[in-house]
Amino acid sequence: MDSMSVRIGRDSLGEVRIPADALYGPQTQRAVENFPVSGLRLPRAFIRAQGLIKASAAHANMTCGQLDERKARAIIQAAEEVIEGKWDGQFVVDAFQAGAGTSQNMNANEVIANRATQLLGGQIDQMLVHPNDDVNMAQSTNDTIHVAINIAGAELVQHELLPALDRTVKVLWAKSEQFMGIIKAGRTHLQDAVPIRMGQEFSGYAQSFANARERIRQTAERLYEIGLGGNAVGTGINAHPQYAELAIEEIARRTGLPFAQPRNRFAFMQNTAAALEVHSALKELAVHVIKVTSDLRLLSSGPRTGLAEVQLPAVQPGSSIMPGKVNPVMLEMSYMVAAQVIGNDATMTVAGCGSQLEINVMMPVIGYNLLQSITILSNMLDVLREKCLEGLEANEVQCAKWMEASLSLVTALNPLIGYDKAAALAKQAFSENKTLVQVIREAGLWSPDIEEALRPEKMV
Amino acid sequence: MDSMSVRIGRDSLGEVRIPADALYGPQTQRAVENFPVSGLRLPRAFIRAQGLIKASAAHANMTCGQLDERKARAIIQAAEEVIEGKWDGQFVVDAFQAGAGTSQNMNANEVIANRATQLLGGQIDQMLVHPNDDVNMAQSTNDTIHVAINIAGAELVQHELLPALDRTVKVLWAKSEQFMGIIKAGRTHLQDAVPIRMGQEFSGYAQSFANARERIRQTAERLYEIGLGGNAVGTGINAHPQYAELAIEEIARRTGLPFAQPRNRFAFMQNTAAALEVHSALKELAVHVIKVTSDLRLLSSGPRTGLAEVQLPAVQPGSSIMPGKVNPVMLEMSYMVAAQVIGNDATMTVAGCGSQLEINVMMPVIGYNLLQSITILSNMLDVLREKCLEGLEANEVQCAKWMEASLSLVTALNPLIGYDKAAALAKQAFSENKTLVQVIREAGLWSPDIEEALRPEKMV
Amino acid sequence: MDSMSVRIGRDSLGEVRIPADALYGPQTQRAVENFPVSGLRLPRAFIRAQGLIKASAAHANMTCGQLDERKARAIIQAAEEVIEGKWDGQFVVDAFQAGAGTSQNMNANEVIANRATQLLGGQIDQMLVHPNDDVNMAQSTNDTIHVAINIAGAELVQHELLPALDRTVKVLWAKSEQFMGIIKAGRTHLQDAVPIRMGQEFSGYAQSFANARERIRQTAERLYEIGLGGNAVGTGINAHPQYAELAIEEIARRTGLPFAQPRNRFAFMQNTAAALEVHSALKELAVHVIKVTSDLRLLSSGPRTGLAEVQLPAVQPGSSIMPGKVNPVMLEMSYMVAAQVIGNDATMTVAGCGSQLEINVMMPVIGYNLLQSITILSNMLDVLREKCLEGLEANEVQCAKWMEASLSLVTALNPLIGYDKAAALAKQAFSENKTLVQVIREAGLWSPDIEEALRPEKMV
Amino acid sequence: MDSMSVRIGRDSLGEVRIPADALYGPQTQRAVENFPVSGLRLPRAFIRAQGLIKASAAHANMTCGQLDERKARAIIQAAEEVIEGKWDGQFVVDAFQAGAGTSQNMNANEVIANRATQLLGGQIDQMLVHPNDDVNMAQSTNDTIHVAINIAGAELVQHELLPALDRTVKVLWAKSEQFMGIIKAGRTHLQDAVPIRMGQEFSGYAQSFANARERIRQTAERLYEIGLGGNAVGTGINAHPQYAELAIEEIARRTGLPFAQPRNRFAFMQNTAAALEVHSALKELAVHVIKVTSDLRLLSSGPRTGLAEVQLPAVQPGSSIMPGKVNPVMLEMSYMVAAQVIGNDATMTVAGCGSQLEINVMMPVIGYNLLQSITILSNMLDVLREKCLEGLEANEVQCAKWMEASLSLVTALNPLIGYDKAAALAKQAFSENKTLVQVIREAGLWSPDIEEALRPEKMV
Repeated sequence: MDSMSVRIGRDSLGEVRIPADALYGPQTQRAVENFPVSGLRLPRAFIRAQGLIKASAAHANMTCGQLDERKARAIIQAAEEVIEGKWDGQFVVDAFQAGAGTSQNMNANEVIANRATQLLGGQIDQMLVHPNDDVNMAQSTNDTIHVAINIAGAELVQHELLPALDRTVKVLWAKSEQFMGIIKAGRTHLQDAVPIRMGQEFSGYAQSFANARERIRQTAERLYEIGLGGNAVGTGINAHPQYAELAIEEIARRTGLPFAQPRNRFAFMQNTAAALEVHSALKELAVHVIKVTSDLRLLSSGPRTGLAEVQLPAVQPGSSIMPGKVNPVMLEMSYMVAAQVIGNDATMTVAGCGSQLEINVMMPVIGYNLLQSITILSNMLDVLREKCLEGLEANEVQCAKWMEASLSLVTALNPLIGYDKAAALAKQAFSENKTLVQVIREAGLWSPDIEEALRPEKMV
Repeated sequence: MDSMSVRIGRDSLGEVRIPADALYGPQTQRAVENFPVSGLRLPRAFIRAQGLIKASAAHANMTCGQLDERKARAIIQAAEEVIEGKWDGQFVVDAFQAGAGTSQNMNANEVIANRATQLLGGQIDQMLVHPNDDVNMAQSTNDTIHVAINIAGAELVQHELLPALDRTVKVLWAKSEQFMGIIKAGRTHLQDAVPIRMGQEFSGYAQSFANARERIRQTAERLYEIGLGGNAVGTGINAHPQYAELAIEEIARRTGLPFAQPRNRFAFMQNTAAALEVHSALKELAVHVIKVTSDLRLLSSGPRTGLAEVQLPAVQPGSSIMPGKVNPVMLEMSYMVAAQVIGNDATMTVAGCGSQLEINVMMPVIGYNLLQSITILSNMLDVLREKCLEGLEANEVQCAKWMEASLSLVTALNPLIGYDKAAALAKQAFSENKTLVQVIREAGLWSPDIEEALRPEKMV
Repeated sequence: MDSMSVRIGRDSLGEVRIPADALYGPQTQRAVENFPVSGLRLPRAFIRAQGLIKASAAHANMTCGQLDERKARAIIQAAEEVIEGKWDGQFVVDAFQAGAGTSQNMNANEVIANRATQLLGGQIDQMLVHPNDDVNMAQSTNDTIHVAINIAGAELVQHELLPALDRTVKVLWAKSEQFMGIIKAGRTHLQDAVPIRMGQEFSGYAQSFANARERIRQTAERLYEIGLGGNAVGTGINAHPQYAELAIEEIARRTGLPFAQPRNRFAFMQNTAAALEVHSALKELAVHVIKVTSDLRLLSSGPRTGLAEVQLPAVQPGSSIMPGKVNPVMLEMSYMVAAQVIGNDATMTVAGCGSQLEINVMMPVIGYNLLQSITILSNMLDVLREKCLEGLEANEVQCAKWMEASLSLVTALNPLIGYDKAAALAKQAFSENKTLVQVIREAGLWSPDIEEALRPEKMV
Repeated sequence: MDSMSVRIGRDSLGEVRIPADALYGPQTQRAVENFPVSGLRLPRAFIRAQGLIKASAAHANMTCGQLDERKARAIIQAAEEVIEGKWDGQFVVDAFQAGAGTSQNMNANEVIANRATQLLGGQIDQMLVHPNDDVNMAQSTNDTIHVAINIAGAELVQHELLPALDRTVKVLWAKSEQFMGIIKAGRTHLQDAVPIRMGQEFSGYAQSFANARERIRQTAERLYEIGLGGNAVGTGINAHPQYAELAIEEIARRTGLPFAQPRNRFAFMQNTAAALEVHSALKELAVHVIKVTSDLRLLSSGPRTGLAEVQLPAVQPGSSIMPGKVNPVMLEMSYMVAAQVIGNDATMTVAGCGSQLEINVMMPVIGYNLLQSITILSNMLDVLREKCLEGLEANEVQCAKWMEASLSLVTALNPLIGYDKAAALAKQAFSENKTLVQVIREAGLWSPDIEEALRPEKMV
């Protein structure tokens, strides 16, 4: 920073050089200098949540008579600008930062204090509104950062992930219906198994995603418990008795989501349990994503040297060297997103184990990972659906070919001739490279009952 | 095996030498020889669940008229002996075994077939009851092993883990009440923070465990969806149309738990999702265990060189070299159990990703890890409670000593003199090694309001 | 325990009832009662290592003149019986036990003290040899349990895992050679790719295992650094200056492995780093196991509805319901072992993070998981090789069929006609369901150069 | 994009609208549209590595006579601009993208082809240099993306991480020396243990980091094996026989690092094993980071209500609500970085398990996580050192206070009075709240030998 463009800020540790026109102040600037770690920042949804908290806290403090109305209105207006995203560029602290997210909270306090000061006709650093005494009134990093994680997580789940899952489930059910007439060889252990309808397979995929969606929805409700008002350690020191209730009501009003006080504020302060639980549900979704996308890669393998039972829409050339190749890129990308989410879950777990006494200071990394996982899952699901699932088609000819060849139809003979004899026939067919019908006829077992039993459509 | 003590069994792959008096048969014996891997076996709860399934299936098949009543009654009786644990020693297959648990299922089929044959007056291997055609009638490894995981998991959760959690939560609430009068220095970032009641801290622990219990209870309900009757791939090939309903009703009757058909049987066959989800909830419990036991190790640190705010009952001498040492062994053991559960969760995830097409063959390792985690958590919670939590006492003198020394009481002055001035006083007290009262007096700020504000009991 | 069969022991916490004829004493008995958690115990290799340490320590203490020779010789003889496995049944403490493994160390001290007392003509509990003052002389749980992990780990790696890996690599190289003449369709993204020799694929498997073996060998050398003599915190309090060197030399002599003092004993005491690093190498091996066994399941898929390029030996009937089915059970079991090892690695990591100040008390769970992983990997590799890899055969006819059908041969035309034109031909062949040769001829591009370029054997 | 600013590109799937002045082309544009997932991109180090590969490949192809010299020189110049970072803004594909990184490779091919075309006097899209036929000559995504991971990883380890570790180790050794005169109470299980020098504790930290550094250095050498020339499946189809050697030599020359051919190219193609192994070593470093930073948070706890044995430099105000608080923010940030790295390792493992047949298509997520982990560890270590470790000071007064109070000095009496009697004294001192000296005197045991034995400086 050259001297023309900087101003000198001051905090309890001394002087700091800050970009002259930055709305943030000395503590944010120290954090920028202290944490040049990853270049990553807490995302839009998180900053929005911080704005929501600051506006709602000012509203509550004003209502309780703790905060001068003129200041409160300026804080609320400034916070609303933060909510809308006007000052995202002023949120400059690395995701890997001070424990508990003190720097992140002070970034919000400083930006809003300076902006509110401007709105009241003052200059940056003139502190007509004080970042700690006014903007942070009745709050602490310890409750607000945790609450911001919950608000941002809840909003992203409600507005991004659940709708994306709904759309995914819907297209999978549609595919299930579309493919219900196709009878194909089942495969277990990747070995020939009894017949199944392709529509049945896809109904399994649809229901699995629907179940995962239900788990996420259920678990995400736990995010609505927010211990705002606990401030430093859960006791709510310095906060007006009505403050917590009023502030949380205001957050519920502004978000349209049923945020409420937790059953026990000390439990809330000690652990970011809801964030961890929601992420566990995301991990379970990731497992389903890996299962279904791996299946679809297997079913679409080929086109000439694989199973080739389904055909995916081509969305881009597949290979830089092998001309004409079209790869299952959306499925592969989805697997990679799932792998990231599974890893993020391990990060959440290690960070979750980091709680000590009154709080868990590992909140920034918990927030970052939770929000990243929700976002990449949501985005992935939408492009997966649009560019892969919707246009996916069955190859009926190929399904019929495999169906006929399978030896597993013999299973249908168990009730007629017993497992042991049926096993002998299957083995003979395999070793003599014959069809089942051939060996059954050669064994003199052919009968109308057996003919009937061997019709695949009777088995599904 | 010497020739005196063996008999020769036969399966579709040929002859096998089997201990003469073993109730199991050739397929079990092959598995014993194929999988000398870990020496670990699927546990009692799992074998019991296999017995429940076989008894219930026989009941259903008999009711549907598919299975001769005499055979059915013999199977049911033999299966009831398995349920009661009479033949646990006959279940001899390693936990790391054939995919899907075919060997485990055949072990049950063979033991029950031979035992039922005996009950009908026959000899081992005489096959008055056939392991596949009769005992396994209408079933497959693919549905029964999965269902056995769910039954065993549900029973252990209901009968072991939830009661153990209830007892743990109860003692934590009692401790919370007992310690509610003790005001102590709060600590955040392990640094002096504003006061808190020890009872408040413990209320956080109690509520956190109560919450974890609630998650487990909720998630475990998903285990009640059992796709028995899906057999090989979910289509229920060879099963009577009434079979699934009857068999599941019988399982519900015998266990007293509300087992029912899944919303979609293909989803059930494809994934052991409920087992994975329950384990995720166990992982969340493990995180709480690590948090609380680590806190208690910190709070009981000393007795002379640590915080020493709580004192644990001595349950065994602490050190082989340092006389008189008493270590927090129950807390440490609990941490290790939690570490194992977190690792088991990773195993579950990798195994869960192993589903391919109609089924996930990784069921044995999924079952083993789920049941191990439930069991070690249940046992750990009970001994933790009995031998550590119940007898845990607070050291009030020590708490008072820390409370007085803490600089964080200054927080209460924010509303009176503002954050910046309060910060300056705290810094001065620290650097001059004085108490807060001293520096406030020296600064000429002492007043009745300030005196009142600084009373810790006003802050909690 | 009825009163006839018990004796009363005493330790610093009071009286304990102990089975009358048990060689172990009060502290072990307390641990049995304190830790009824899993039913699992530290394995043979660990008990052996404890015996090695106790014998070597007694030898060193005797040599230094600290321990009476008669006592020392009795301890050594008793410890040798422990080494040989004579008293395994006397090691009765759960794997989930006192932090640092104090109970495990005292179990060894008590068994050896009582046994040595017997050897000197005394009775159990007569303490002619004292468990702490004599057997544990110059030692602490803190150094001996850590050292026992390293010794047991090193012996299992050297004597079980590396030889099993050598045998596995050898058979994979043999298969590579055997299959070098088979040209088959390569597959990337599970899509048709340019040709490859099956022998080349297997050479990749062989080399990958050889590499993993090399990593394990290299990392396991770190286990040879053992900080015996550090005792409680690394300072070696109460130990004779020569003790550490002499004891470690004796361990090296008895094991034939190059154990030596660590570069820094405090680093050794603080972290079980070598165990964690070795386990990371085991995790890498597990990833290879998953890769290779998944590939082989894919290549052996069928026999009629899959790729069917390789055929596995049948080791047991595959299905309880589908007659004649033969599943890739050894491959599936191997995947499950790998999943367990990956999970164990997460346990190791969480436990590894549990170090606080002078030591990491999570050693019992670290030791248990390390040794379990080595053992199940070793056993798995041997049965995988014997019952699957050695008898694995290629299906040349099937390979040729896929090779011919593949569209990816068009890649060879890039240098002749460019990527864009080649891509157009491939697309046309696919959409018109023709062979490449057909579309090339129809496009009037056929030439001797192209004919030559399209020969698969030119591409591998 | 409005119509003024776009151009129309074409690839084998049809037309694409591209920003008019973008150097990238249709395949990159398709990837931008296909993968709006995370907003994250592969980092600078990766793009640089892609440039190095493209320049070296062009050099090799020119030398072999496969590529026209004029084209080759243009490609090399364009690639050098990529190496230097001139076109980073043109690399626009999300980190979660096409399997194997085809989009990433085509992004490089297209940018370099268009830039080379410009350098030859042509216009964008005029294809004087073709992205596939010329820039990608003799290459495939499958080898180049893997090789780029290795090059980028090796460079970051050599130039960032190892130097940062060296600096960290150096300051820890300096602290060890500085604190060697301070004798303090050791603590094991967080309970009073025998004395230790603070310098000894820090020597453990220093050596542990030195060991971790050595593991990383050793493992990172495996990144030097690069299978460039394997292209699609390892067979090197379409590549000149000399190409691989020449290209790799050129990469070694340009980087100054000893890159060379792998022992087996098929093993290289199948698995990104070196990346996984290096990341395992990073995970081990992360465990040390958690251990040491957690210890330092414990030792610096207070200042009034904790151990307070060390004092950290204040780098920013600690709390938004509690004035004067200074938190261990650098240590907390370091823990969060470590948590992320541990999670990334799980992602690497799941992605590593994704290899199927000839290649592992999960390379983009593997590359992203490897490089992120190296970068955040390097950056973290440097700020941790600068802003925390270098200025860390011991509080000798406090150390002495704890030392005196500790009961564990009694350990030194074992050789004089035996463990049992020593234990009784320690218990008495604790229960009667006396010092050891008091109870020893009261027991009439005081003697010159005991006085001498109890001097802490004799115990360290």
